[in-house]
Amino acid sequence: MVKKTTQIAVIGGGDCTPEELQTAEEVGAEIARAGAMLVCGGLGGVMAAACKGASSAGGTTIGILPGPDVEDANPYIKIRIATNMGEARNVIIVKSADAVIAVGGEYGTLSEIALALRDGTPVVGIDTWSLSRCGKPDIPIIPARTAKEAVRLVLDMID
Amino acid sequence: MVKKTTQIAVIGGGDCTPEELQTAEEVGAEIARAGAMLVCGGLGGVMAAACKGASSAGGTTIGILPGPDVEDANPYIKIRIATNMGEARNVIIVKSADAVIAVGGEYGTLSEIALALRDGTPVVGIDTWSLSRCGKPDIPIIPARTAKEAVRLVLDMID
Amino acid sequence: MVKKTTQIAVIGGGDCTPEELQTAEEVGAEIARAGAMLVCGGLGGVMAAACKGASSAGGTTIGILPGPDVEDANPYIKIRIATNMGEARNVIIVKSADAVIAVGGEYGTLSEIALALRDGTPVVGIDTWSLSRCGKPDIPIIPARTAKEAVRLVLDMID
Amino acid sequence: MVKKTTQIAVIGGGDCTPEELQTAEEVGAEIARAGAMLVCGGLGGVMAAACKGASSAGGTTIGILPGPDVEDANPYIKIRIATNMGEARNVIIVKSADAVIAVGGEYGTLSEIALALRDGTPVVGIDTWSLSRCGKPDIPIIPARTAKEAVRLVLDMID
Repeated sequence: MVKKTTQIAVIGGGDCTPEELQTAEEVGAEIARAGAMLVCGGLGGVMAAACKGASSAGGTTIGILPGPDVEDANPYIKIRIATNMGEARNVIIVKSADAVIAVGGEYGTLSEIALALRDGTPVVGIDTWSLSRCGKPDIPIIPARTAKEAVRLVLDMID
Repeated sequence: MVKKTTQIAVIGGGDCTPEELQTAEEVGAEIARAGAMLVCGGLGGVMAAACKGASSAGGTTIGILPGPDVEDANPYIKIRIATNMGEARNVIIVKSADAVIAVGGEYGTLSEIALALRDGTPVVGIDTWSLSRCGKPDIPIIPARTAKEAVRLVLDMID
Repeated sequence: MVKKTTQIAVIGGGDCTPEELQTAEEVGAEIARAGAMLVCGGLGGVMAAACKGASSAGGTTIGILPGPDVEDANPYIKIRIATNMGEARNVIIVKSADAVIAVGGEYGTLSEIALALRDGTPVVGIDTWSLSRCGKPDIPIIPARTAKEAVRLVLDMID
Repeated sequence: MVKKTTQIAVIGGGDCTPEELQTAEEVGAEIARAGAMLVCGGLGGVMAAACKGASSAGGTTIGILPGPDVEDANPYIKIRIATNMGEARNVIIVKSADAVIAVGGEYGTLSEIALALRDGTPVVGIDTWSLSRCGKPDIPIIPARTAKEAVRLVLDMID
């Protein structure tokens, strides 16, 4: 038997601000320090920064790539999964995660947030989307201000 | 050579209000009257109502189903596509549509809106999600109040 | 209620011989004459030839494309489904078909035959793969010599 | 930068013979001893046996699951990827592997062999499918008699 390890997804834009890169790297490092594995889309921007942080802290990084070639993974990915399914791989990222942390993010990130909320998977967001629907209560993306707070929040919700 | 026909996706919840059902049925009928084909997720609620409207008006209905069995299609679907890919089929609905009309909708619908906006596919919404991101301009879901207006708006944008 | 129409997949290579093109075109025409709809991968070679035959005979053609763009469909496709999932779209072709006819074919076709046999979907083959496994009985790809025979065989099995 | 590790897929039936289980376990152990990671479909039979062998030898095991829940992984999987895409996950297994070793196997395995050969990914088989196409040269599944030979053959082809 292999001991089960928590898998936390970090989602966010391939293009992002320097602040988002910094935050993502800290999120990755915090995930590794917590003994969890990091799942992401395997490319650049927030994904690469989070993997850099996690691998620097001795963590395991998993990249679920949109393209057909494992060589497209950012250099901080240990486990390279090539789906050749484009944005449909967003479903796999979310389904493979015990919880999701969003850092910033564009429409691809929004699709992942939506899929996670649909599954009832906890989503913590740092400077990410706000959602509302006419006549409905507020949508449960749990806000965090710092990487440390984000990781603590998701771990609290998984336990 | 087969003449190319516009394909318009109607997205929305499997569970929905009576008003949404009514609106969806009118949207389907307007799509058929415009000579376009209707693409949807193939199940109930908004999807079935839109297909009912389209087929009653002599239109062609295409259902991209999440499950493995074409028999799960609602009774108003003519072309039954079984993906066995769950929510990953949302990508296919959006990629196969020249434009998207959202009627209400829950998280699955939100994921489809996000995917469409990511691709630059026009999205018109009737009583659907509001999106915003801190520090970013408003998000271009084009609002419509009626089925007729929604179909007119998408046709204007496709042309 | 929309009347359910049989959906028959025609699979085979994008590259193929003139004889295979001729056969595929006849298969498509026979499917249309039988009142069934033709499902295929939407591209060239056997797929385009079968669609040409079907559309010439007044049939409906459905293309499940590997790429992100409906414009990649061959010119005889009426219903254009863009999956952006590469070979994973082979699963969708097979799941959406009541029966499968293989004309020649390379490895992609072989993957579709395997997926169909796994699901218990009837497979008729014209000059296609031979399969065997050590110590197992022969594998049930039903051989046909002509397009007419192939379509007759699949219709017999569906009924 | 993370050091790139070879990823080898082991494919085969969920139902299999005691001899296949034994062989698969040895294949998994040899993969781990060679310093490679094992990719598989994450379920039972050949998959679980290979993972048992790999994890006993200190290797890393990656399961690409057909269902929506990481809890369906066999107990020897370390990295649990839930696709919710049924057999379409076979594409991901193959795309994520530098080489494939087939042990026995049914139609699902055959679809994976076909997809790997299509991509030009080396396939070594132990008591698995035989393939032929009329008028074509023999198909390059490289036969091996033992687990040790199979792993040596794939490593030779990757280098």
